[in-house]
Amino acid sequence: MNKSSKLHMKTDEFKKQGYKVIDWLADYYEHVEEYPVLSQVEPGDIRSKLPEKAPNTGRAHDEILNDMNILMPGITHWQSPNFHAFFPCATSGPAILGDLISTGLGVNGMSWATSPACTELETHILDWLVDMMDLPVKFKSNSKGGGVIQDTASSASLVALLCSREKASNGRTNENGSNGDFIAYTSSQAHSSIEKAVKIAGIGKNNMRMVDVDQNFSMDSSHLRQLIEKDISNGLKPIFVCATVGTTSSTAIDPVNEIGKICKEFGIWLHVDAAMAGPAALCKEYRFINDGLNYADSYNFNPHKWMLTSFDCSIFYVADRSQLINTMSILPEYLKNKTSTSESVFDLRDWGIPLGRRFRALKLWHVINYYGVSGLQEFIRTHMENTKILRSWIEMEKDFEIVTPTPLTLICFRHTKGNNFTEKLLNTINESGKAYMTHTKLNDQYIIRFSVGQTSTTIDHLKETWNYIVKTSKGMIEA
Amino acid sequence: MNKSSKLHMKTDEFKKQGYKVIDWLADYYEHVEEYPVLSQVEPGDIRSKLPEKAPNTGRAHDEILNDMNILMPGITHWQSPNFHAFFPCATSGPAILGDLISTGLGVNGMSWATSPACTELETHILDWLVDMMDLPVKFKSNSKGGGVIQDTASSASLVALLCSREKASNGRTNENGSNGDFIAYTSSQAHSSIEKAVKIAGIGKNNMRMVDVDQNFSMDSSHLRQLIEKDISNGLKPIFVCATVGTTSSTAIDPVNEIGKICKEFGIWLHVDAAMAGPAALCKEYRFINDGLNYADSYNFNPHKWMLTSFDCSIFYVADRSQLINTMSILPEYLKNKTSTSESVFDLRDWGIPLGRRFRALKLWHVINYYGVSGLQEFIRTHMENTKILRSWIEMEKDFEIVTPTPLTLICFRHTKGNNFTEKLLNTINESGKAYMTHTKLNDQYIIRFSVGQTSTTIDHLKETWNYIVKTSKGMIEA
Repeated sequence: MNKSSKLHMKTDEFKKQGYKVIDWLADYYEHVEEYPVLSQVEPGDIRSKLPEKAPNTGRAHDEILNDMNILMPGITHWQSPNFHAFFPCATSGPAILGDLISTGLGVNGMSWATSPACTELETHILDWLVDMMDLPVKFKSNSKGGGVIQDTASSASLVALLCSREKASNGRTNENGSNGDFIAYTSSQAHSSIEKAVKIAGIGKNNMRMVDVDQNFSMDSSHLRQLIEKDISNGLKPIFVCATVGTTSSTAIDPVNEIGKICKEFGIWLHVDAAMAGPAALCKEYRFINDGLNYADSYNFNPHKWMLTSFDCSIFYVADRSQLINTMSILPEYLKNKTSTSESVFDLRDWGIPLGRRFRALKLWHVINYYGVSGLQEFIRTHMENTKILRSWIEMEKDFEIVTPTPLTLICFRHTKGNNFTEKLLNTINESGKAYMTHTKLNDQYIIRFSVGQTSTTIDHLKETWNYIVKTSKGMIEA
Repeated sequence: MNKSSKLHMKTDEFKKQGYKVIDWLADYYEHVEEYPVLSQVEPGDIRSKLPEKAPNTGRAHDEILNDMNILMPGITHWQSPNFHAFFPCATSGPAILGDLISTGLGVNGMSWATSPACTELETHILDWLVDMMDLPVKFKSNSKGGGVIQDTASSASLVALLCSREKASNGRTNENGSNGDFIAYTSSQAHSSIEKAVKIAGIGKNNMRMVDVDQNFSMDSSHLRQLIEKDISNGLKPIFVCATVGTTSSTAIDPVNEIGKICKEFGIWLHVDAAMAGPAALCKEYRFINDGLNYADSYNFNPHKWMLTSFDCSIFYVADRSQLINTMSILPEYLKNKTSTSESVFDLRDWGIPLGRRFRALKLWHVINYYGVSGLQEFIRTHMENTKILRSWIEMEKDFEIVTPTPLTLICFRHTKGNNFTEKLLNTINESGKAYMTHTKLNDQYIIRFSVGQTSTTIDHLKETWNYIVKTSKGMIEA
């Protein structure tokens, strides 16, 4: 927007149209549960309604806002209380407004100097979170470690792997390239982004070991040890273990304490991926998810999943920030400034892959201050308690079978009529638009994942969805 | 926000506070040029004003909005008309509002199914842009290629390099890791993110050749050929050339046509980085920046720099999308759905590094529709013309010397009194808060980079800043 030019949106128009967008969003949230949760369009439906060419003359903002009517049928409603697919992306009013300020300010926090508040607020809040969640103090900025916001857990895992690679090679891979004898380890249940990171970093998928899991889908640490010892005896160099606290398939929790002891013994970088589970540690009673973090070289969890913060916001801690900076740092002349070679500030571009950085700390600032620690705890506890109730309902239905423990808010279940029936049931529910769940496979069984965690999901929503699942499955049997 | 729970922001409160944030931003833009452009705080100043612990009880949103008073002294004002540092991050009213809708909807466009409109709008707009900028049609989705929004040019370069690596090794690096004989090439003036990408991908800095530049700081293609031939004769494998159209130091333009012929001859992946320059091609008279793109395997430019779109929004095209997808794709069970193994849709998570994706196409939709092609052209032309005028003023001052051509909107100049004086002059201007410029070094000369391109910068702003620079330098000489 602009005070003078005819070309740009005037301040008055920005206000008027801004109010309209706010109203539009408020209305959206009032009615979000009336939409089919999973978009019901076919491939190409949305594009076929869009003009073939960009307009030569600009259009009124009212018209552009009206275009949302074309797009809305192609939206899958992640903010619906009946969204139980994948993991949640639970956002909130204060997060949306905090992010709006960030977008409006339009600063790029690549260096401390390019907006000191952007860097300092980020560091400050990430220090807060260490206290709020009782994480190891080594992750705080007044120790040797520190925290930074990444876009996603995928990037956090990649950065952790790169740190391990450079630590193991004393910086020589950055200089000379990979030498092919580095080995990374994670469980067969780990997130696909670990494999992607291993490929990106030039380690190679064949140098990644998929550690066996136990009957609860948690990493078998004795198998990890066997694999490490075998690799060492073959002249290979174990450099990286990714333990998962809350796997994507079933929220299985790896025994980080045992894994950490092995990593320490062999001098291996331990990254702990708690993308979904992490925020549970806001509540004392769920701090079992922090077990073993004292061994972690790096740790990741996502406030954009289960801490009311708009995507993207993924927290990444390292125990030794010099490892991170040595791995990622680049300092060309045009980025140098009075503080860039001093020890007094962090230049967060050296803490991740992209150079440019949004002011993402602002949305976290809004969320933590608006809810307070007690409000965030209530949010987590409500979901945990509602999940227990939902689980008890599923247990009572003899046609359904829960197949894994439920340490957090994901329930994995199947219909006793088997894989095909369960798959058909899930598709029928999703196509009804009443709820959206996704699936996984565990021991060759097709499993429905019912993930609780959206901002506005209440026990009534869960009851209604569960009743609909039962009714649908009975209808399918009778048909 | 929420209809029922006491915990969450009610819809009415969201509206009320949303209006306040819109008003706050409108007021910010009305007064943005009154702030010191470069933040004047010292390291730690902002943190020292923040509470040591997160609040236990939530605070009113009004109070949180007031916290901006603490943060504002720590903001460097990228949206000030007197911001001439680095390259611009020019945003606009429609971009801010488009992004607000995206944040509010809170969808994750990782797969087509998780919000078909998110994927289809992105593909559609990127096809529009090919036409708008007269780019090679091979980049359109109805050919073998396609486009995707990345966060930054750093990520785009990395993804391009990974594609080249996998193409050259027929996918074997993803499988087995790097083998150390791959070589990447770019000019000594290329962006630091190329070196960073080479490190991340396990190629190694020592396997990156810095090609010489000519007197205009453009890549010397005959030196590129020499380096390639020498590497081949040494048994090494050239895989990747990054040509830059508009380098960061001086917006030098590499001879892409000549470079492209060499790449074609030797079967090397050509990536063209036009992060800043790309939008100039919206105007027919500046389409010389597209020369040679017919040879490019991948191409990148940033609407978040010079096309009125809020950060982050970096456009990445490939000529053969199968190369990209083969390089980046991962498909675990929990991400499979009815369309995920079909050819009918794009799952854009396989076109970049992070799994999760914001609905970034919405802000571009707002910008292109609000301004229209003719409005965007006017925006570019105004900056180009104003830059010419500014250059003529600098040329008229005998104490100053322009050291490079000005093909776009960056003017590189120095004071005739030399490096120390020029550096002191720049620091004095920046510390005054009246304008913010950054520097580079070219042939061991300390150079002030005056970058034109912010949304609201007019010829009057340029005049005032230039007069202040002249006055300050004269004052320094007299002192």
